[in-house]
Amino acid sequence: MSQFENVTLVKAANIYFDGKVTSRTVLFADGTRKTLGIMMPGDYEFGTEAAELMEIMAGEMDILLAGESEWQTIKGGESFNVPANSSFKLQVKTVADYCCSYL
Amino acid sequence: MSQFENVTLVKAANIYFDGKVTSRTVLFADGTRKTLGIMMPGDYEFGTEAAELMEIMAGEMDILLAGESEWQTIKGGESFNVPANSSFKLQVKTVADYCCSYL
Repeated sequence: MSQFENVTLVKAANIYFDGKVTSRTVLFADGTRKTLGIMMPGDYEFGTEAAELMEIMAGEMDILLAGESEWQTIKGGESFNVPANSSFKLQVKTVADYCCSYL
Repeated sequence: MSQFENVTLVKAANIYFDGKVTSRTVLFADGTRKTLGIMMPGDYEFGTEAAELMEIMAGEMDILLAGESEWQTIKGGESFNVPANSSFKLQVKTVADYCCSYL
């Protein structure tokens, strides 16, 4: 869907890596949560608590999930899953617009 | 307020200046609209159609409104107004988190 309706949006941004990665938190009536964010080109590593579905709406990046040895290329329109209590590395090539769902 | 409730959030980001300025559009039940955005350090110029209230939640910048000759310094917690059909220049010094209301 192109927009989320009847949601609660936290006004202040989440800011990481000196602003090169930022997101806004969206709360849904069913108790679930997503973040909508932007990643500037660069190399990052993130840890997870909940499992995550990362939907890349625009941009291009290579990702490496913990325990894997091969980087995967992910482009706008594609997505990837990250297990709970894990981590992943990203090499963002072009400005990325993403939606992260906490599962 | 720290969060917006019962709003519609457009999923895709608005991306300007190669991603150095990005925002998300929030639609309210009363028909009004705001954007929540991030500006990375840099120099920018924006035009307005509707008048805007720019609330700076975090960061620091100097601004110059069209027709004025003196730059003003705006810091997190401060805001400024821009007239309709006008423009303004920004020199963003530190990563800025903003809320723009279209009046």
